[in-house]
Amino acid sequence: MSDKNSGDSSPGHLHRLVLFSDAVFAIAITLLAIEIHPPHHWHGVADLFSQMGPKLLAYAVSFAVIGICWFSHRRVFARLARADGRLDFLNFLVLGVIALLPLATELLWEGGGQALPIYVGLVALSGLAMGLLWAYAAFVGKLVQPTPTGEAWFMLLRVTVLPGLLCGLTLFSLVRPWGWILIAALLAGLSWLGRKLKVA
Amino acid sequence: MSDKNSGDSSPGHLHRLVLFSDAVFAIAITLLAIEIHPPHHWHGVADLFSQMGPKLLAYAVSFAVIGICWFSHRRVFARLARADGRLDFLNFLVLGVIALLPLATELLWEGGGQALPIYVGLVALSGLAMGLLWAYAAFVGKLVQPTPTGEAWFMLLRVTVLPGLLCGLTLFSLVRPWGWILIAALLAGLSWLGRKLKVA
Amino acid sequence: MSDKNSGDSSPGHLHRLVLFSDAVFAIAITLLAIEIHPPHHWHGVADLFSQMGPKLLAYAVSFAVIGICWFSHRRVFARLARADGRLDFLNFLVLGVIALLPLATELLWEGGGQALPIYVGLVALSGLAMGLLWAYAAFVGKLVQPTPTGEAWFMLLRVTVLPGLLCGLTLFSLVRPWGWILIAALLAGLSWLGRKLKVA
Amino acid sequence: MSDKNSGDSSPGHLHRLVLFSDAVFAIAITLLAIEIHPPHHWHGVADLFSQMGPKLLAYAVSFAVIGICWFSHRRVFARLARADGRLDFLNFLVLGVIALLPLATELLWEGGGQALPIYVGLVALSGLAMGLLWAYAAFVGKLVQPTPTGEAWFMLLRVTVLPGLLCGLTLFSLVRPWGWILIAALLAGLSWLGRKLKVA
Repeated sequence: MSDKNSGDSSPGHLHRLVLFSDAVFAIAITLLAIEIHPPHHWHGVADLFSQMGPKLLAYAVSFAVIGICWFSHRRVFARLARADGRLDFLNFLVLGVIALLPLATELLWEGGGQALPIYVGLVALSGLAMGLLWAYAAFVGKLVQPTPTGEAWFMLLRVTVLPGLLCGLTLFSLVRPWGWILIAALLAGLSWLGRKLKVA
Repeated sequence: MSDKNSGDSSPGHLHRLVLFSDAVFAIAITLLAIEIHPPHHWHGVADLFSQMGPKLLAYAVSFAVIGICWFSHRRVFARLARADGRLDFLNFLVLGVIALLPLATELLWEGGGQALPIYVGLVALSGLAMGLLWAYAAFVGKLVQPTPTGEAWFMLLRVTVLPGLLCGLTLFSLVRPWGWILIAALLAGLSWLGRKLKVA
Repeated sequence: MSDKNSGDSSPGHLHRLVLFSDAVFAIAITLLAIEIHPPHHWHGVADLFSQMGPKLLAYAVSFAVIGICWFSHRRVFARLARADGRLDFLNFLVLGVIALLPLATELLWEGGGQALPIYVGLVALSGLAMGLLWAYAAFVGKLVQPTPTGEAWFMLLRVTVLPGLLCGLTLFSLVRPWGWILIAALLAGLSWLGRKLKVA
Repeated sequence: MSDKNSGDSSPGHLHRLVLFSDAVFAIAITLLAIEIHPPHHWHGVADLFSQMGPKLLAYAVSFAVIGICWFSHRRVFARLARADGRLDFLNFLVLGVIALLPLATELLWEGGGQALPIYVGLVALSGLAMGLLWAYAAFVGKLVQPTPTGEAWFMLLRVTVLPGLLCGLTLFSLVRPWGWILIAALLAGLSWLGRKLKVA
């Protein structure tokens, strides 16, 4: 490959990748609301919100999902020291899943119950793609700033599992409120694991 | 939390948060016009504008609203020295309200009078979210550059109250022209308060 | 105003204004094509292009218009040394016109001849707004890097007049081909004037 | 031209051009999915995917196409040392083709077989526009960082030919699986040529 002497792994590369990704995240998150239209007839605020409720709820869930993915993306890229062509490719995989979320959100409010596994599956897929990206950067491409091995594995676990699990549990908790306890336990467990692995 | 030694509070974090927010503001403001379509039949410029009048007026009001919110956001972030995960979260709250404004604008030109309180309420909510962000940054998270206490409180008042109040008064003034006097008084009062608090 | 001691006129302000504007330009230019849909029935490439011709032509003209406006915007901002709140406001005026161009493009391909003056008027308005911004920055707010007076006036003439004139003449030339000679003369004249004023 | 002494060829110019282009790429790639809507009636995941199959396939192909074009754009701009007005113009040509890809994608899933040559032609056009930009930057405008002649010609070949050829071969391979061998041979050949030319 000609990457080394042609500026392909320069810091400018990493910066441009982040800029591009941020723009895709921002557009995807803003487009979430674009297919929501007000109802034709409504009488008073309560009626409007009861008619738009499912759409606004789907909007809020997807906004949180893209927020969590952006958060993971920022965490991963804050540790990278440089980029290469394969990282570009894996990043496109991540963004390709993110850009489908407005469509999946529409599916969620129209398809109801049978759309749930597809939606959660797509969110889980975004976590897998992000995990793949981190695994390549940390263990194969050696693109990261010096990071202890335990921390690298913890990072892999967190970015891979968190989006799908949090999304699934949140949707579950809307039906069975004791699901929120599972979410709290999950976050506490991850936090505890993070502290432990970094001490070791 | 692992934020301190993992680059999560680096200046790069703050920069990326600003980039991301700017993209969301820019998309929301540009999407305001996307649901406006020309009428099917029109004869002459006067007829076109009389048919499109309410939509163009709603566009102009929402453009100004997002402009004011961007202005507040820029003011707040110009004073920040660093970012953390909670700031990310509060910033997502702000952006989540902003991204709903194209939908609220559509509601405004279709729903007429009964949509007004919802629209103004959403704008006021964006001010509240921004105030929450600033309160966290200035008083809890200690993320700001050195700022006198009086100035910090004034900033909180301004970013919290201004969007909703200005928007409500502007819409009111379209019906009762003496509302413009209230707006002038409000801006003069805020300016006077700003000077006074900074002297103290 | 509290601008001076609160970071509002920092170089970061100017940078963020440019970032935000670039995002709006980029979204407006990309949304130009979003309302164009392929025809339901078509047979062969020639039929497709004859059916889509007016829309693609309107797309190309608007793409060029936004390109010229971006070019003016870049030229103006390359000479600025700092920004203030009034520049923010004037920049929002410019962007508010630019964000209407996708709508005006739709009007152009649907309304035909009677939409032409509205379209050209909107483009001319964008030039006026940009001229206002430059006039404020150069002559009132003193926000520019050292620029000879003659150059500042030439800049004002160029950014104010060029978008509307070029757009009007281009649309005119599609009907009367000798309009292209006027365009060439206009550009040559501006170039000559530019050289002359800078010598003086 | 007044470019030299007016900041038009400053590094800020190049940076802003990259920012603007990245935003257009990001919007075009995210809008690919915006015209895809879930079917009104579906029973189970298998039915949903069989109904949405052609659209999701077109989405994936176009996502890859824009990815390859962004990759070429990044490679080209990583070698540039400065920008000028003609580079702006050629870059607008590239972006004008890219911004049509969401429309071409819609054509692809609606028009079926007869849309294929138009789609591939548009992708090839984006390669030609990028090649033109590089040829101007490297051989006419002298805007590039020091680059050996052989490398400059190889770059020209790669950015011009790759998008159209890869896209055509990929679509061909979906029907005739031995097309994948041609793709592998093409990539291997380009890689071999790249190594050879840089040795010379």
